[in-house]
Amino acid sequence: MNGAVQGFYAVVPAGGAGTRLWPLSRTAAPKFLHDLTGAGRSLLQSTWDRLVPLAGPDGVLVVTGQVHEAAVRAQLRDLPASNLILEPSPRESMAAIGLAAAVLAERDPDAVLGSFAADHAVADQQLFEQAIRQAVAAARAGEFVTIGITPTRPSTGFGYIRCGQHLAIDGAPDAMRVEEFVEKPDVATAEQYLASGRYRWNAGMFVVRADVLLTHLRTHHPLLHEGLVTIARARATADYDRILADVWPGLTRIAIDHAIAEPVAAGGGVAVVPGAFGWDDVGDWQSLADLLPQDGAGTSGVQVLGDAAQVLGHDASGLVVPTAGRMVAVLGVEDVVVVDTPDAVLVTTRAHAQEVKGLVDALKRSGRDDLT
Amino acid sequence: MNGAVQGFYAVVPAGGAGTRLWPLSRTAAPKFLHDLTGAGRSLLQSTWDRLVPLAGPDGVLVVTGQVHEAAVRAQLRDLPASNLILEPSPRESMAAIGLAAAVLAERDPDAVLGSFAADHAVADQQLFEQAIRQAVAAARAGEFVTIGITPTRPSTGFGYIRCGQHLAIDGAPDAMRVEEFVEKPDVATAEQYLASGRYRWNAGMFVVRADVLLTHLRTHHPLLHEGLVTIARARATADYDRILADVWPGLTRIAIDHAIAEPVAAGGGVAVVPGAFGWDDVGDWQSLADLLPQDGAGTSGVQVLGDAAQVLGHDASGLVVPTAGRMVAVLGVEDVVVVDTPDAVLVTTRAHAQEVKGLVDALKRSGRDDLT
Repeated sequence: MNGAVQGFYAVVPAGGAGTRLWPLSRTAAPKFLHDLTGAGRSLLQSTWDRLVPLAGPDGVLVVTGQVHEAAVRAQLRDLPASNLILEPSPRESMAAIGLAAAVLAERDPDAVLGSFAADHAVADQQLFEQAIRQAVAAARAGEFVTIGITPTRPSTGFGYIRCGQHLAIDGAPDAMRVEEFVEKPDVATAEQYLASGRYRWNAGMFVVRADVLLTHLRTHHPLLHEGLVTIARARATADYDRILADVWPGLTRIAIDHAIAEPVAAGGGVAVVPGAFGWDDVGDWQSLADLLPQDGAGTSGVQVLGDAAQVLGHDASGLVVPTAGRMVAVLGVEDVVVVDTPDAVLVTTRAHAQEVKGLVDALKRSGRDDLT
Repeated sequence: MNGAVQGFYAVVPAGGAGTRLWPLSRTAAPKFLHDLTGAGRSLLQSTWDRLVPLAGPDGVLVVTGQVHEAAVRAQLRDLPASNLILEPSPRESMAAIGLAAAVLAERDPDAVLGSFAADHAVADQQLFEQAIRQAVAAARAGEFVTIGITPTRPSTGFGYIRCGQHLAIDGAPDAMRVEEFVEKPDVATAEQYLASGRYRWNAGMFVVRADVLLTHLRTHHPLLHEGLVTIARARATADYDRILADVWPGLTRIAIDHAIAEPVAAGGGVAVVPGAFGWDDVGDWQSLADLLPQDGAGTSGVQVLGDAAQVLGHDASGLVVPTAGRMVAVLGVEDVVVVDTPDAVLVTTRAHAQEVKGLVDALKRSGRDDLT
C-alpha cells in the first residue's frame, strides 16, 4: 500500500472564486491560495501534499488561470513547469480536466488520472490514499470512478450519489455501481438520503483512464474533444501559445459532472468508491469554523484562524480571522464571525455565513470591484 | 441676550482618556480630539464653537496636558497662546480649574469663569446660552453656580443634584439652592429621583467668580490654593516654566466636586440653574449611538459615524465607525457596534458598551499599551 501508484496522475483544477469566503478570498487571490485550516499551508499546498504520495512530484498536474501563474509557481516550488497548464480564461471544469487528460494521453497511453479540487480539505491521509488506490484499480478496469463521501450530516450544500450494487473488481473491493447523481437536496430529502444509507456526498473527485475519459468526451461533446486534443498535441511545440489562444475561447463551458459523469452514469458506466476520510469543501465561514479544532478557543473564547495574539475576546464565541496585523477585539457577541483584511473587514454570524455572496454581489453592483 | 458676556471667561479642562470609546479614543489621542457626533468638528472644537458666543475668542481658556499641546493648537487655531494652560502631568480637575481661576484673577479681579468639559455634547445652543447667562448673573451675586441638566431618563451613569428653594437673583430667575450633590444611583433610586422632579443631572459645569472660587479653595484646600496662586503669579514672567515644574507635582489630586462643590453646598453656598438644552457626556458607544440621528441608518441598516460609503450592511442594525479607510461589512447582526481603526477593530454590542474599559485593561495587562 506504500509508494506512488505507477501510471497514476493527479490533476488539480485550481479555480473557483470562493466568494462566500470574502473578504479573505478574492478574485485576484482566491480561496485555494489561502491557508484556511491553520495548517501553515494553503489549500493548494495541502492538496499537493496529499497527492504527491499517490502520484509522485512529477505526477501532479495543476490547471489554473494564467492570472494565477506566479502565485501557483511560488506556492508549489516542486511542480514541474511542464505540469502547469494555464487557461487563458475560465472555461469550467470539463475543459480544464479534459485538456489535462489529453496532455496525459499524449505522454502515457495507459495513464490513469484523478481529478481533485485545489480548495477542499481532507482529514485522514491514510484513508484517502486507500480510497484512491481502489479507485485507480476500478479505473484500470475501464470504469469512470467517483469518490462517494460517507455523509456525516444531512447537508443541503452538497450533491449526492445514489449507490447501487457492489462490483467485483480486483483491487477495489468497496466499489459500487452509481445509479444516479442527484442535485443538492432540501433538508427533508437530505435526511431521507442519510437514513437510507444508500447515498454519499459527491466531492467532485473523479478517477478514470485518460483514454476512457477522452472516449466519453468524444461521444458526448465531440467538438470540445476535438479542440482539447488539438491543443494537447501542440503542447510540446512552438505553436502551442498560438493554438491555445486560437482554440480555447471557442470551447464549450460545461462542468465535468454534466458533460460526462451524469450521462455516463445513466448508461451504467460510473463506479463509486466510498470515502470516509473526513472531507469538506471549505465552502463558507461556518464550515471552516467546524473544521478548526473545537478546543482551540483558548482565553479569548473564540476560535482563531491565524495568530491568536491578535485577538482579544471577552464573553464571546465564534470565529475570528485576523490577517491584517491588527488587534481584533470581540466583546459580548455570540457565534460571531470577524474576518479582518487590510482593506475590508467582515462582521457576521455563523448562521449568516451562506449569505456572504450577496454582500460581494452588492460590492460589485456599487462599483467596488477593487474589493472583490 | 446677544453678544459675548462682559467679564465672562470659559475654562475648558481638556483631559480624560475616554477609555470606553476605545479603540478610537486613545491615551495619545483622547476622546476630546475626535469628531464623535458627525459634526465635522472634534468634541473640543464643538466645545470652542459653543463657548465663543458667550466668552468671545479671547475669553476661552483651555487647560490640557503638555503632551496634547500640538493637537490642541492644531484644532483651535484662534485660541490665544496666553489662553492655553499646559499641565506637566494630570492633577485632576481642581488643580486645572483652580489654576485657570488664579490666572484669570490676576488678569481681571471681577472675572466670572465657567468650566465646561472638552468632551461633552450639547444639542441646543440657544438654550445653553440662556442657562449660562443666568448662571453668570447668579455667580456675580457671589454664588457658586452649577448647571443642573433636566433628566430625560433614569440614568445610572451620572451624579445628581437635589434642588431646593428658588432664589431671588436678578437675571437668574430659574436659579435654585442646591441641597445636595448625590453620587450615581442604582436604577430604583434613579427612578425615584426622576419621579420626584427635584433632581437634576450634574454635568460638571460650574460658573463662579474667580475670587469666590479662590476663597472657597483657600478655605478648604489652603496648600493647593497657595500652590496655584504661586504658579499663576509667575505666568507672565520668565520664571514660569521653572516654578510650574517645581510646584505642580506636589499639588493635591482632587476633583472640583469633592474639593469645593460638595463642602460649599453643605454650607448652603451653591446655586443651580436648570438646563434643558440636551446634554450628554458621550461616555460610551451606546450613548454615542443615541446621539446620532436615528433616521441616519440609510441603506446599510446601521448608523454610521463617518463615511457611509465605507460601510456595507445587510440585515443588520447598530453603529459602525469606519476610520481606517477600509470597507466594513456587517451581515445579519443586530445592535452591533463595530469601530474600525488602523491598528485595532472592536466588535461588540450596544448592550456591552459599558464593558469596553475591561478590554482596554486587559490590553494593558498583556503589555499592549501601544494600543491603549
